[in-house]
Amino acid sequence: MIATLQNDRLLRALRREPVDRTPVWLMRQAGRYLPEYRAIRARAGHFMNLCQTPELACEVTLQPLARFPLDAAILFSDILTIPDAMGLGLSFSEGEGPQFARPVWSVADIARLPVPDPEVELRYVMDAVRLIRRELAGQVPLIGFAGSPWTLATYMVEGGSSKDYVRIKSLLYNQPDALHRLLDVTARAVTAYLNAQVAAGVQALMVFDTWGGILAPRAYRDFSLAYMARIVAGLTRVVEGRPVPVILFTKGGGAWLEDIAATGCDAVGVDWTVDLGEARQRVGDRVALQGNLDPAVLYAAPDRIRQQVAHVLADFGPGPGHVFNLGHGIQPGVEPDAVRVLVEAVHEFSAPDHASTAS
Amino acid sequence: MIATLQNDRLLRALRREPVDRTPVWLMRQAGRYLPEYRAIRARAGHFMNLCQTPELACEVTLQPLARFPLDAAILFSDILTIPDAMGLGLSFSEGEGPQFARPVWSVADIARLPVPDPEVELRYVMDAVRLIRRELAGQVPLIGFAGSPWTLATYMVEGGSSKDYVRIKSLLYNQPDALHRLLDVTARAVTAYLNAQVAAGVQALMVFDTWGGILAPRAYRDFSLAYMARIVAGLTRVVEGRPVPVILFTKGGGAWLEDIAATGCDAVGVDWTVDLGEARQRVGDRVALQGNLDPAVLYAAPDRIRQQVAHVLADFGPGPGHVFNLGHGIQPGVEPDAVRVLVEAVHEFSAPDHASTAS
Repeated sequence: MIATLQNDRLLRALRREPVDRTPVWLMRQAGRYLPEYRAIRARAGHFMNLCQTPELACEVTLQPLARFPLDAAILFSDILTIPDAMGLGLSFSEGEGPQFARPVWSVADIARLPVPDPEVELRYVMDAVRLIRRELAGQVPLIGFAGSPWTLATYMVEGGSSKDYVRIKSLLYNQPDALHRLLDVTARAVTAYLNAQVAAGVQALMVFDTWGGILAPRAYRDFSLAYMARIVAGLTRVVEGRPVPVILFTKGGGAWLEDIAATGCDAVGVDWTVDLGEARQRVGDRVALQGNLDPAVLYAAPDRIRQQVAHVLADFGPGPGHVFNLGHGIQPGVEPDAVRVLVEAVHEFSAPDHASTAS
Repeated sequence: MIATLQNDRLLRALRREPVDRTPVWLMRQAGRYLPEYRAIRARAGHFMNLCQTPELACEVTLQPLARFPLDAAILFSDILTIPDAMGLGLSFSEGEGPQFARPVWSVADIARLPVPDPEVELRYVMDAVRLIRRELAGQVPLIGFAGSPWTLATYMVEGGSSKDYVRIKSLLYNQPDALHRLLDVTARAVTAYLNAQVAAGVQALMVFDTWGGILAPRAYRDFSLAYMARIVAGLTRVVEGRPVPVILFTKGGGAWLEDIAATGCDAVGVDWTVDLGEARQRVGDRVALQGNLDPAVLYAAPDRIRQQVAHVLADFGPGPGHVFNLGHGIQPGVEPDAVRVLVEAVHEFSAPDHASTAS
């Protein structure tokens, strides 16, 4: 028994259909800025326990919705679940970020990588999706996600976070064929993973290409965008007559919005360095746009937050096809009340626009 | 007695005049990737000793020219000499990057900031310039530089390097007037500093806006670009009948090249995420372009380096107005021989282009 969706603003906006007001959700809306998250995180012990225990992942996913009238939930998980399921041994050390016990350092390492079965090695994610859908009871849609193959490959090759990406870039420039093999198996794993999320119940998908923006244009097209396009082509886009929209987001990818839009995705996420009005002129007739408030605005006073929200809405302008979001994830030091101010400002300022265009 | 300049390729290219081949220099060409730099750095003790001892700064400036046939020298110094001269107390701790003993944390701190007299508090820089000019003996031109006011302000307010720029962004969104006062005094200090470098002998100028790319478009124009434009307007642009070209470089500023070109600068530096051919179409009739090889290419094998150099030259295309450079500074782990391969490839591949357009 799946409940009827009560709030379809997000899905409508992603399809560029009219809405009564601009839908809003925030990247990392479930996260460290919330005291209730920090409490459950402390109880969970290791970070991966949160992701791997469906009840905890569900609880954390729903926390921001209990506080704020957001228009979507996003699965609480991590983009590195896939490399972990491929056997790389993921852990998170305090303050150090993610680390792999067995990074990909050779062509032989790449040849050994399996495509995980999402309902076996990543069953905990699918169980979380099923549980969250039940608990959401149709309140808002649930967004599933994965990292882009290029972004996952940077972590897999660097062994964790990196400052200068020496290993992955050396692979790119010295052994492009080996990198293509790595990206190919990763793209197949991502496609299977996202399709399994759709089968388990997510109602929209987002691909996070966090590190596409460190690439030169030619390298971006060949090593990041091409694989995202392949994923888009391989996704289940309709379930029981209902479309499942796909959002692609390359942080630092403002120069390539036309190329991203041409993959066949439904929406393009843009970071805060992009002028949303210009972005819309460039791609607005083909895809919806998601973004793009500077996350640092959430450190400002309420009237400043409201002013900046108004700027973003005005930059996009009237008419359909906008999903309000930050240009990147919420920072951990933000006060929860700042998020309330943001969400209420989106509601207040966006309703007249849509009313006027609907009249 | 100032020697006649024997190699004016850089100055000609910056003025978009024909050259026999594309001039090449590299950001951080004097630096840690050179064993002779590491040797003198070890002898100097603190990093600032290198900058503050004209003989050492001169020696380090000339080191890459002894190895490679580069078309320019760039003053060895640090962008943070100005805030240090303003009284913030600069130090470099091992592996931690720069730190200020007295960061700018209040409106009162900003009100107290002086505009340093370059020939007093920054005399060591001017002495280094005079010494380098003498030692260069007209071999190649000497480039002087400073950080942009916005970039300097990020360090001054954050107290050093930052990951998420919470302090400076909070100032920007909460107290824009206070930030404008900080940027105003910093812009006046930079202008005086660059003009003193010109008086001391530098033959071209570059402004490094390392952190302009973290700003939203509106904030970039108001808080970074506006102050660079003010600096450009206040610079000595001709010395004894010879023009002193000015290069502006905003890392991550690819979306704003037209605006940067409109400041009245002679050349715009572009990072490796920009397509140089598109950049030229956008601004090429107004300014020269400097860039933009991915610095990570220098980790690749010689034939791959040559291939990527050829790509950059082909992206720009034939005709004048290109200064070959990396898209950011040389990374410390690069082998010096990789730089030789790069420089020789620029020579080899660029001469025919220029010959064909000159015929």
